[in-house]
Parts: sequence; C-alpha cells; structure tokens
Amino acid sequence: MYSYVPPIDDYRFLLSEVLGFDQAMAELNKDVDADLAVTVLDEAGRMCAERLAPLNREGDEHGSQLIDGAVRTPPGFAQAYRDFADAGWAALSADPDHGGQGLPFILQLWLDEMLSAANLSFGLFPGLTRGACEAIAAHASEALKAAYLTRMVSGEWTGAMALTESSAGTDLALLKTKAEPQGDGRYAVTGTKIFISSGDHDFGGNIVHLVLARLPDAPAGVKGISLFLVPKFLPGADGAFDQRNSMSVGALEKKMGIHAQPTCVMNYDGATGWLVGEAHRGLAAMFTMMNAERLMVGIQGLGIAGAAYQQAAGYAKERLQGRSADNVRAPVAIIEHADVRRMLLNIRSFVEAGRALAGWTALQHDRSQHHADAGERARADALVALLTPVVKASFTDFGFESAVQAQQVFGGHGYIREWGMEQYVRDARIAQIYEGTNGVQAADLVGRKLPLAGGAVVEGYFALIAADVEAAGGSVIARSTGTALDALRTATAALQGADTDAAGAAAVDYLRLFALVSMGWMWTRMAQAAAQGDSPLHQAKRKLADYFALRVLPQAQGLAATIAAGEASIMALEIDGF
Amino acid sequence: MYSYVPPIDDYRFLLSEVLGFDQAMAELNKDVDADLAVTVLDEAGRMCAERLAPLNREGDEHGSQLIDGAVRTPPGFAQAYRDFADAGWAALSADPDHGGQGLPFILQLWLDEMLSAANLSFGLFPGLTRGACEAIAAHASEALKAAYLTRMVSGEWTGAMALTESSAGTDLALLKTKAEPQGDGRYAVTGTKIFISSGDHDFGGNIVHLVLARLPDAPAGVKGISLFLVPKFLPGADGAFDQRNSMSVGALEKKMGIHAQPTCVMNYDGATGWLVGEAHRGLAAMFTMMNAERLMVGIQGLGIAGAAYQQAAGYAKERLQGRSADNVRAPVAIIEHADVRRMLLNIRSFVEAGRALAGWTALQHDRSQHHADAGERARADALVALLTPVVKASFTDFGFESAVQAQQVFGGHGYIREWGMEQYVRDARIAQIYEGTNGVQAADLVGRKLPLAGGAVVEGYFALIAADVEAAGGSVIARSTGTALDALRTATAALQGADTDAAGAAAVDYLRLFALVSMGWMWTRMAQAAAQGDSPLHQAKRKLADYFALRVLPQAQGLAATIAAGEASIMALEIDGF
Repeated sequence: MYSYVPPIDDYRFLLSEVLGFDQAMAELNKDVDADLAVTVLDEAGRMCAERLAPLNREGDEHGSQLIDGAVRTPPGFAQAYRDFADAGWAALSADPDHGGQGLPFILQLWLDEMLSAANLSFGLFPGLTRGACEAIAAHASEALKAAYLTRMVSGEWTGAMALTESSAGTDLALLKTKAEPQGDGRYAVTGTKIFISSGDHDFGGNIVHLVLARLPDAPAGVKGISLFLVPKFLPGADGAFDQRNSMSVGALEKKMGIHAQPTCVMNYDGATGWLVGEAHRGLAAMFTMMNAERLMVGIQGLGIAGAAYQQAAGYAKERLQGRSADNVRAPVAIIEHADVRRMLLNIRSFVEAGRALAGWTALQHDRSQHHADAGERARADALVALLTPVVKASFTDFGFESAVQAQQVFGGHGYIREWGMEQYVRDARIAQIYEGTNGVQAADLVGRKLPLAGGAVVEGYFALIAADVEAAGGSVIARSTGTALDALRTATAALQGADTDAAGAAAVDYLRLFALVSMGWMWTRMAQAAAQGDSPLHQAKRKLADYFALRVLPQAQGLAATIAAGEASIMALEIDGF
Repeated sequence: MYSYVPPIDDYRFLLSEVLGFDQAMAELNKDVDADLAVTVLDEAGRMCAERLAPLNREGDEHGSQLIDGAVRTPPGFAQAYRDFADAGWAALSADPDHGGQGLPFILQLWLDEMLSAANLSFGLFPGLTRGACEAIAAHASEALKAAYLTRMVSGEWTGAMALTESSAGTDLALLKTKAEPQGDGRYAVTGTKIFISSGDHDFGGNIVHLVLARLPDAPAGVKGISLFLVPKFLPGADGAFDQRNSMSVGALEKKMGIHAQPTCVMNYDGATGWLVGEAHRGLAAMFTMMNAERLMVGIQGLGIAGAAYQQAAGYAKERLQGRSADNVRAPVAIIEHADVRRMLLNIRSFVEAGRALAGWTALQHDRSQHHADAGERARADALVALLTPVVKASFTDFGFESAVQAQQVFGGHGYIREWGMEQYVRDARIAQIYEGTNGVQAADLVGRKLPLAGGAVVEGYFALIAADVEAAGGSVIARSTGTALDALRTATAALQGADTDAAGAAAVDYLRLFALVSMGWMWTRMAQAAAQGDSPLHQAKRKLADYFALRVLPQAQGLAATIAAGEASIMALEIDGF
C-alpha cells in the first residue's frame, strides 16, 4: 500500500481561492485565517497519515474482541487514541466554554475527512463523542454538564449513542427500553440496544451512553421517548467515577467491515441514568446529535473515496499491462488506458467537489452559530438543514461507488485482502446505512427540507447556484451545471405537494440529482478560481471540471426522466407478487 | 434467512411462452421439450435449495483452509460435491461422446443460475471443470482425451485453469512460467500461478490443471504461449493415477468473499504436463474455455441477484416500520414504502430480463453447435460472440448492484454477517473482476465484437430487436426500448473506426447501454407473451415491464450523452497530475 497523503494543497486552494475563508471568519469575528487553518490541517494530516493509517489494515484483520465481557481494541488503538486526545484533536471545534478550541467547523469536517481516509474505525470514537457532547451541551442540566461535558470534550472520556433496538431502527416509535424514576432524580434504565458503536473499549476513562428509553407514563410512539445519560462508571461517595453501572456488553456485532470498531449489543439492567432534556422530548435531543453526525458520516464516504483514489492512482502508475494507444510501446502503465483513467477521474471529480461542498456547508454551519445577525444565522441554519441529508447520502453513495471503482483498478489484486482495497469497500458500505439509511435521508430531503419556509430555502439555494453559473459565463462546467439545475428545478416543482408514495418513489433519484448539481456548482466555482492561476493544481482543476461537466453531469438527464416517471409503476405490483 | 426458491415458474414461462423452446429444439433435432426441461430444472433446483444453499453461510464463516499443504473445504462440501457428481449434474450439457447427457445449454446456464444463487463457491468447482473439459475436447490429442475427458465430464475429477501470474493478469504477454520438453512427449512445467480457483480440494479424485506456459523456443508476447495439461496425479506403471505430480499449493489467497472456494497460489516445480493443442497457440485454446466461462460468470451475477432479491422481498414483507401512505396504519411492513419497492423492483426487473437474455443466448449457442446448416451455425455463433462480453459484464455489474440494494433493504441488519446479505455483496464482487475484468469485456465488445463481419453481426442483432419492438406495437416497454435502441445505434455508428482512446473511453458506458437495450428487448417480448394470459405471473410480468420501461431504461439517455462526450476530457490530465 501507498502512504496516505493528506490533501493539504487542495484545502489551501479551497480556503484561499474558492470559499473566501478569511472574509467569512472576519465576518464572524473569528481570529483565524487560511494560513493558520492550513497549519492546523497539516498537523492533523500528519497525525492521520503517520499514526492512524498504519493501524488500519491490522485493525481490520484483528478486529475488536470481547474478552470476559470487556472490549479489547486492536493493537495500537488505545495508545493512538490517548495520543490523539492528549494532542487536543478531540476538542478541535468544541465550544471553549467546555474546554474546546473553538476552531471553525470546516476544520473539523476536513479533519474528519482525513480521519476517515486513514482509519474509519478509529475516527468513529471521537466522532460519536462529539455528537454526544453536542446533545449534552444543548439539552442537559447544568449539573450533568458540569460533571461530564469537559472531560468528554477533551477526549478523556468518550460517548456512545444508544438508539437502535432489534425491532426499532428507522422507526423509533417501536422502541421498548424503559426508564423508571428512582425518586432522587435518577432513573433505572432497562433494555437491550444493538448496533452501538464505541459501546465499550479499552482506552480507559468513562464511556457516556446516551440512551433512548420510555418513562412509565410515556405516550405511545415517538412522542413518548426520552433521552438518558447512562455512564459506564458512576460517581462514588468521594465523587470519583469508579462505580461500575449495571450495564454490559452482550456481544459484539459480527459485521461486513469496520472490524476494529467495537459495535456492541448493550444490555442495560436497571442501569442508573439521568434525564437529558425534557421528558418525552428525547427525539428532539437525539436529532441534535444526529444532524451533526450525519454531516460527519457523509464525510466518511468522502474520506474513504480519497484514500482509495490515492491507492488506485499509485497502482495505476506502476502496474504494467497492455500496449500504448499508438500500439508502439508495451507493456505500459495502466494509467495510460482510457478506461482506467475514467475510473480514477470519476472518483477524483467527486472527491474534490465533495470536499468543496463540505467546506461550504461547514462555513454555513459556523455562520448559523456565530453570526451577529439573527436573520443571517437562521438563513445559514436552514441551508445546513437542507444540505445535511444531501451530504450524508450522496457522499456515502458516491464514496462507496468510488471504493468499488478504485478496487476495480487493481483487477484481481483488488479482491485480495492484503492490498486493502476490499477493506475500503466493506468499510465504506456502513456509511450508506447508519445514522439513517440513505433512503431515509432522501425522504428527509423531499419530505421535510424542500418545504422549509414554503420552499424559499431551496429556492434560495438554487439562486446561489444560478448566480455563480451566470457569473462563470459560458464555461463548459457552467453550462452543464446550468442545464442540470434546470432539470432539478423542474423536478423540485413537480414534487411540491407530492403525496407519500410519489415523494418516496422520487426521493433517492432526486437526492442524487440534487447532489450532482451541487457538485457541478462547486466545480463551476473551482474552475472559475483556477482560471486565475496556472500552477499544476490550477491546470488540473480546470481539466477535472471539464471531465465532471462532460462525463458525470449527463447522468442528470436519466435521473430527471426517472423522477418524472412517477410512482405508478412502483406501486402497481401487489405485495403478494413480490 | 429464507429458503431459496428456484424460479421454476419463470423458467417454464420463458421456455413455453417467450423463447419458443420446443420449436428451437425440433429445428436442432433435439429430443427434448419444455416439459422435460422443466422437470430437469425442478430436480436441479431442489438439489440447489436443499443441499447447497444450507452450506453457503457456514462455508463463508469457515472458509477453505490449507492444512499441511492440502486444502480442506468447509464442512459438507466434499460430500455435497460427490452427491452432485453422482447424480449426473456435472455432465448435464456435456457431449454424449464423452459421457455427457447432451442436454441443451439453456439448462446448463439456468442450472448455473441456481448454483450461483445457492452457493457460488461450490458452483465454481463444476463450472471450472466444464471450461477445462471444453478446452480439452476442442484442442487436446486423442490420447489425452481418452485419459482425462470422461472422468472430468462425469465430475469424478475436477479441472482448474492456471493462467494468471502476479505480474501477468489481463496482459498474458508478460507471463513467465516455462515448459521444457522432456523428449518423450512430456513437458516439465515450472512457475508460480496466482488466483487459481479450485486449485486443490478434498473431494478426492484427480485435479486437472490447464496451465499457460512458454516453451524454450517461444517468441515473446502472446504468440509464444502454450497450454499444458498438468494433473495433480500422474499415471503410474499400472495406469492408475496415483503418482503425485511436482506441484503444490503455495498458499490460499485471502479474499473479500467466496471464502469457501479455495483460490490457490500454485507452484509448479518441474511438474509433468502435456501440450494441449499446438505449440505457441495456447491463447486460442484458452479462449475456448474462457468464452464458455464468461457466460457462466455473467450468470453468477444473475444468480446472486435473484437469491438476494428473495431474501430482501421476504424481509420487506415481515419487517414492520413506519406508517402507511395514508398515514392510518402503523407500523406497516416496509414493502408498503415506495422506496423499498423501488429497490426490489430494480433487482427483479434485471433478474427476469437477464434470465430471459441468458436463455436466448444459450439457444443461440446450441444452434451454433447443432444446426444442420453451416450458415445458421455461423450466424448463431457470431451472436453468442457478440453477447458474451455483454452478459459477463452487465450481469455481474447489475448483479453486484442488486446485492447492494438487497442489503440496503435490511438496513443495519444487512451489515451484520448473520443475515447473509453482506456475503452476497462480497461474493458477487469477484464476478466483475475474474475471467477478464468488466473493463476488458467492454473493450472486447467495442474493439472485437462490433467489427465482426464489418458490423453486420451487431446490425443483425439490432434488427432482431427492432422487429420485436415493431411487432409489440405501441406498448410502453416497446416504445422505451425503441428509443433506447435508437440511442444505441447512434452510439454504435459513432464508435465505428474509433481509435484506442475513443473506444476505451466509451466502452464501459456503451456496454451498459447495450445491455439495457437487450433487457428492454426481453421485457418487450415477455410483456407481449404475458398479454396472452392473466395468471398472477402474467400480470406481474406486465407490471415489471412497465417498471423497467419507465424507471430503468431512462438511464440510457445519460449513458448516450456520456458516450457522445468522447475521450478528450479523459486523456487531458497528464500522468503526473493523477
């Protein structure tokens, strides 16, 4: 395998030449500029490449194991985690009030990209902790915050989200875990949860589970779910967290991939917990973590695609096979063959557009948190809400497809474990499923996000794209993006007021079309910026923009036609006919 | 997991109502009709469902192992293989002159479908043996045929194809294995081969390797490659095959999937072998096996897709989640949700069209072998040659995509090994790679098959489609297929005389477009036939044809646009820029 090379030059280009990072930070009165950001990313990238990537293959082979009821992570993980937290990476973007460094969210997302590229199983530990911190910060009592938040933000302690049960996944209305009030502000939580990432580990420190459960007086359905903080270790009389709570790992899930990540079946046997937020309002609290997680999960697809690209491009430059196009030289490096280039360019043109779109979305996130003007905050928040399902689903779909194509570049060697390419495929696959399947994301986009502000949010977003397309004049990518945007607007209009079946029939294709247009927008902006320079990076950007325009965006036509076909042919077959 | 249900009703429908099986057999003077064929398929299906499918999951967990230099297959495999061969299934379509049953090839391909659905790792043993038999039958001396062929055809002995070396995969010009003549008609073969499926096993009997190697006087490149028969056991003085040859399993490949299948690194250390066919003409002999194998590999994708569909449909009818579209009932079986149906119908509309197209191609194969008229034989042979890369690549691409979609229906449970869905994904993935990657298939289609007879073969094929579209009048599927056929014809014309880069740039998208049109053609024929009846099967066929027309065929538009975009944007980036 080739060493992972963090995409620092691309980050610098995006910050300085495309996304207007310095101006954006100045508007938010943030004392950080592109130079500082690049320095931080460079340092983070070194840690990912040098410490975490080398653990990835062995982590897959070894896996996390359950030994005498305790999880043992693969060799090197525990020390790497401690070093990661000690160096402050866990606290990068967290609120300084809770011990965070308060750096902008764009650095967090791009750190997530490099973490996912280097070692997805490892990256889930800090990633889930961050989601738990956000839910606690937003909803927990001051006492809970004081007791838990700082030590979680620093990475001393980790977090886990315990939502799913065997019969309650997407549909949390069906969950059965119970919480009995003990009369002293504490609750006894009882039930079994499955698919609990980072449910246990051997890094030391507390593990803070956020558990969805029902109170005795809870109404049925999703309006009767509450959120509880249930730590592995409870405070004893002297305040030290050294009392084992009544919870245990029932089993480790045997999975397709992310073998190093301990995905637990968790048993809570009257475990002591505290209510987070209001009773019966657990779903709202959960969505606080879920939304942040969904952007991160999208980035996981991006990260793996970028890593897989580097391996495939490296291999394609060295593997000798076949003849040159003019039939003169043989054997030649397979990167000379058009079909190999096609696969590599499919991946690359997604990765760089995705990286840019993630950065743009992250800047909107910071704006939604820190802008002085409430209207600007709300406007940015709505754009993040709109883009969250798009980033989650499309980045993980394209990410998986990218891993598959990168594997294909290796031919038979791609199927052999030693090369690591099949691990990318297996690891990338989970990101299309967890934190809400990609079908659920598409339903969220069509059913909840398009109607935001009566359609004004999505129209505002399209207007941003249209303005940049207009400004880019007649470039190839601007024209292609404009054409695809027209198709997207038509589809959007057709979905207004669509009933459940019509929306469900269209949703996944619609989300993909939405993502292609958004990436075309980013390529339009990148090509525009790259026209100002002539470095190898600038030249490559212009060529990649052409590739995306001519060979990726045409997919939009088929998607638009499929969406327009409607739901009748989907609903026609009776259930017994399946 | 749900029990595998062989698609016998669909086979009957295709034989009797779509493909004109009885008439086709009568024309070839074959004494077999649809009733007999269905009886055979039913019996074969029972064996697949009852004996082989139950071994599939444990075979994956257990894997084949190398113990003291010998392969041990997973529990149950050896006995199942013996039972399979004893019941005559290995010899189904083989030439009666060599002990085969001489049944038509359509039964062989559909048996392969059920084998792949039930247990792909198992199915490779008889599948590779059949390819080896065909090469021996076509190219080996009478003495070799007498010694080996009957016992291989019966399944008493198995075969293996030893082509690939670590630096010579797609490009066999680079292979280094040597064969030294021993002066007595025997050769000493020395070299290391990788990726050798069924290279060793514990079923008992001989294992006949067909090994590509170079003679001492061989010219460089592919014109210096010869094929050798190298058996695990050599005949001793008394003629019994009890002398161990100088060949050994160096290692088992550690793979993404097909864990039960022993994929070997083989060392030949001066192993005794005999030349098959002429010296330096090994590639031609190899392609005899390769072409038959390629159809079988395509069917592997189809088989897994069909099996994965059954699991996903079964699960979707039982898994309760969410609300009914009218918001009245909850929870409902997820098969009520449009997006779940969409995934299932994508798979099903491929599987049934693929099954029909495989059947049609198989009938052409029989025609090419057995028709009384030489011109008819040649015409049929050319159609099989045209369709072989299409079936191999598109069925395995759609098959893999189907496995991924079926896994998605299961949500998080799809990622857990126990449910078996992730195994389908891992197993299906190899079929896109081996026997010539799907990129190689696409290059074969565009570079070698379109120019056959100056383009007359492909034009003849399109004319068959156009005639059936015409005959089907204005049905939805006929209209959609006609539109897609127009796009395909335009693309075909544009590729005439394309240079290497232009052909390479277009090939994969072109093959997919070609496959979609071919499947649209099969749906046109099936819908037409189904219009004559009103059974549940007939009704379902008509609805599935509509689905394919409205929601799958629109992809053709995007593919046509991508093909038309040409190679410039693919070739623009210099190698250092990757």
